[in-house]
Amino acid sequence: MSAMDDIAAMLGPRLSRGASVCEQHGRSEAHYALAPPDAVAFPETPEEVAAIVRACAADGTPVTAYGTGTSLEGQHLAIRGGISLDLSRMDRVLAVNAEDLNAVVQPGVTRTRLNEELRATGLFFPVDPGADASLGGMAATRASGTTAVRYGTMRENVLALQAVMADGSIIRTGSQARKSSAGYDLTHLLVGSEGTLGILTELTLRLHPLPEAVAAATCRFPTVADAVNCVILVIQSAIPMARIELVDEMMVRGFNLHSGTDLPEKPHLFLEFHGAPTAVAEQAAAFREIAAEFGVAGWQDATTTEARSALWAMRHNAHYATGALEPGKRTLATDVCVPISTLAEAVVEAQDLARTMGLTSAIVGHVGDGNFHCGVRVNPEDAAEMARVLDFSGRLAETALRLGGTVTGEHGIGLGKQKYMAAEHGPALAWMRAIKAAWDPANILNPGKMLPPES
Amino acid sequence: MSAMDDIAAMLGPRLSRGASVCEQHGRSEAHYALAPPDAVAFPETPEEVAAIVRACAADGTPVTAYGTGTSLEGQHLAIRGGISLDLSRMDRVLAVNAEDLNAVVQPGVTRTRLNEELRATGLFFPVDPGADASLGGMAATRASGTTAVRYGTMRENVLALQAVMADGSIIRTGSQARKSSAGYDLTHLLVGSEGTLGILTELTLRLHPLPEAVAAATCRFPTVADAVNCVILVIQSAIPMARIELVDEMMVRGFNLHSGTDLPEKPHLFLEFHGAPTAVAEQAAAFREIAAEFGVAGWQDATTTEARSALWAMRHNAHYATGALEPGKRTLATDVCVPISTLAEAVVEAQDLARTMGLTSAIVGHVGDGNFHCGVRVNPEDAAEMARVLDFSGRLAETALRLGGTVTGEHGIGLGKQKYMAAEHGPALAWMRAIKAAWDPANILNPGKMLPPES
Ligand SMILES: Cc1cc2nc3c(=O)[nH]c(=O)nc-3n(C[C@H](O)[C@H](O)[C@H](O)COP(=O)(O)OP(=O)(O)OC[C@H]3O[C@@H](n4cnc5c(N)ncnc54)[C@H](O)[C@@H]3O)c2cc1C
Ligand SMILES: Cc1cc2nc3c(=O)[nH]c(=O)nc-3n(C[C@H](O)[C@H](O)[C@H](O)COP(=O)(O)OP(=O)(O)OC[C@H]3O[C@@H](n4cnc5c(N)ncnc54)[C@H](O)[C@@H]3O)c2cc1C
Repeated sequence: MSAMDDIAAMLGPRLSRGASVCEQHGRSEAHYALAPPDAVAFPETPEEVAAIVRACAADGTPVTAYGTGTSLEGQHLAIRGGISLDLSRMDRVLAVNAEDLNAVVQPGVTRTRLNEELRATGLFFPVDPGADASLGGMAATRASGTTAVRYGTMRENVLALQAVMADGSIIRTGSQARKSSAGYDLTHLLVGSEGTLGILTELTLRLHPLPEAVAAATCRFPTVADAVNCVILVIQSAIPMARIELVDEMMVRGFNLHSGTDLPEKPHLFLEFHGAPTAVAEQAAAFREIAAEFGVAGWQDATTTEARSALWAMRHNAHYATGALEPGKRTLATDVCVPISTLAEAVVEAQDLARTMGLTSAIVGHVGDGNFHCGVRVNPEDAAEMARVLDFSGRLAETALRLGGTVTGEHGIGLGKQKYMAAEHGPALAWMRAIKAAWDPANILNPGKMLPPES
Repeated sequence: MSAMDDIAAMLGPRLSRGASVCEQHGRSEAHYALAPPDAVAFPETPEEVAAIVRACAADGTPVTAYGTGTSLEGQHLAIRGGISLDLSRMDRVLAVNAEDLNAVVQPGVTRTRLNEELRATGLFFPVDPGADASLGGMAATRASGTTAVRYGTMRENVLALQAVMADGSIIRTGSQARKSSAGYDLTHLLVGSEGTLGILTELTLRLHPLPEAVAAATCRFPTVADAVNCVILVIQSAIPMARIELVDEMMVRGFNLHSGTDLPEKPHLFLEFHGAPTAVAEQAAAFREIAAEFGVAGWQDATTTEARSALWAMRHNAHYATGALEPGKRTLATDVCVPISTLAEAVVEAQDLARTMGLTSAIVGHVGDGNFHCGVRVNPEDAAEMARVLDFSGRLAETALRLGGTVTGEHGIGLGKQKYMAAEHGPALAWMRAIKAAWDPANILNPGKMLPPES
């Protein structure tokens, strides 16, 4: 019997070979071509995941985990066919340990669901990639977002894991303690591994106390260099920003087109401050003092919860608002991250390059971390345009590496960034391959992702 | 030619086979027996380290890295002979990137040396294991200490590494950017690997702005449960403690004997607050409000720099002060770490157990992290006493695992904790072994450490 038959017998209707379900799992928010799996499995327990992986291991069927399918480098696409392992039915919050500031969740719980469940506790889970992604998917891509500058990324906020490995065995990594020196750090090895080393079936996540006070604001600057130089000084001054997001002039135009706002088409920073009421006021004052040196204007407080939500909803819709700049195409989002001291150089270079190359590119950035995205419009069917956009993306990657940074701050490698792995990691790449070969010798877990083919 | 001859030819007098040098490298601060290597190598560059490892790989000679030899589980002891690779000559601070809040150092730089070099910058490196350990050794044991509650452990503070691998190749992991989603997290895999996966030859470390104001204080409580319950509530209230250390009645007696102080023999907390002057005052007030509920008494501010230094010097001498309680023996330090909500239970159980078993045991603890040490006096020559002390340590380990914690919060596995690896990690242990086998198939890097022998 084939793996597929085994799994069908085990899951019944929870293994779907229907064209629409397969197509839905083969689609991407980015520019990648449709790549439907042979079937989609909807397991409900870690033991079912283990049995599915065991069956796949027996005949070499690929297994690609699927959270909510929002990853931007094609990570979730089952490009070699086989099973798309949809974890959306494993969506229980198993425990909220308020006293220990952690929660234990199944991988299909989304970040907004978790925060809803936490509402009564005075705690929250901060990592926020905009999209309402699954926590398993976020761990697998080492996601971050607007709040990482203050609260860290998935790297800092995953304490422990349960995972199903390539032979179907179930392991636990980490513990409920806040720190440990016991053995190799498998938790961090699995976080960011894009489903190529194991399937995450349970996560223990760090929670944070809700800040007593939250204040948000927007402001604008004469040039993007002014805005970024302001950010650099603010970070170096250790003002504990909760959010500090750059929006360039082109992105503002996108927002105006998409949301009907009429923000001046100048580079903006979108800000948030967390803390005790006095601390929040002090932080905002300290920020404004620095910003004054860089010609800040148009300060707008978003004091009510509604105003704040509207502000961040606009920011989170950047990916779609970029679409309004040149309808009928797709968006390719770059994702370099550089040392903060070099950020102004990198951002200005990106803007100039897009202009020179005649591309429609809008910038948003988690600039407190040195991370920014150019959303570039492209028609994937137009080979010449696609090549130009990929060339643009490649040049940004080179810039990031030259400046001591990374080709991906948060979106991950997936399909699109494999070509930079050797340049970024050099000889270390061989040691990554050795781990993959040791842990998944038959290469059934998300094959064709992250590690480039050996030449 | 043997590895030893090759290395002697390369290093000349920087390969020492002298008995006194070998004995010095075979000694431990803990209860482990003397285990001198065959020779001690003093490389000065990453390339020399690579050449040494390559030579050792050629004939299977063990290589055990040596920082300052302060690790407490025998990690640095070359128990299978071969080379002790002493990194103390690789002691340059290569760069201080103040704008990016990081520093690049060679592994032999000690934490106090780094902080001296940082003095003019307004920045500091917070991780503080008491001993003036090397930063390479601290990374290799995933060390932490008194300030981890606020600033994290070596896990959070190592951004990037250069390492020499078991075949002598030199790799780089991580980047100078604050975050990345590019590939497997080899940085975190090497941090805490105790020299069994690679030799760290360069570290990029996160720096933190020196707090504007620092205030320290001590206070005492009626019972150890009161002290710990106070800590639990303080942590849950998110007061950003910079240090919060428990010292039990027995440890106070040790301090009095060792330093000639006359602190009341009651459980104490040693505290430090960092921040803006107003914030520090607010934090201390918030702390005292909570502490009042638990019968706090004897509040003593340590306001001057000298008073503060004296306070932390006393705390850092705990390992030696324990000796005063029963001279002529050695100290075995336990190191469990539990979820903070269970900390009072664990500490009280440890005290009761020591009393029942008739052991001289003094407790100090990084209690904000749920981590505490019992310093137990033992004569390693007395087999019966040694067995009793190991039984005590084993029971604490069981308690920690029952409570969801770890057998070692910061000292690591080395020789002494291998016997708990299976209990703590279960099936995950096999996946750690697979990494070791893939990366160091000839088992030349610190053989016999961390991973227990396969049964
Ligand atoms: C509008 C928009 C904005 C975005 N903004 C951000 C941002 O600011 N920051 C950011 O970091 N990302 C951002 N992203 C990207 C995306 O949200 C993240 O990559 C997210 O982490 C993906 O989660 P997911 O549940 O959709 O995972 P999927 O896309 O389903 O899967 C992602 C990868 O993880 C693997 N995977 C999924 N679940 C598991 C599991 N349980 N075990 C093992 N592997 C698993 C998959 O195989 C795949 O390799 C954005 C995306 C969109 C569409
Ligand atoms: C009095 C006292 C108090 C202590 N308090 C604490 C505490 O509060 N918190 C804490 O965490 N620890 C504490 N320790 C333990 C000790 O200080 C730490 O384990 C420290 O990290 C060891 O550093 P080292 O340079 O002495 O390393 P060593 O003891 O020389 O080596 C430790 C391990 O790291 C490996 N190693 C060393 N350098 C490298 C390198 N460059 N590359 C790869 N591997 C390497 C060695 O092979 C060995 O396995 C204490 C020790 C003492 C004596």
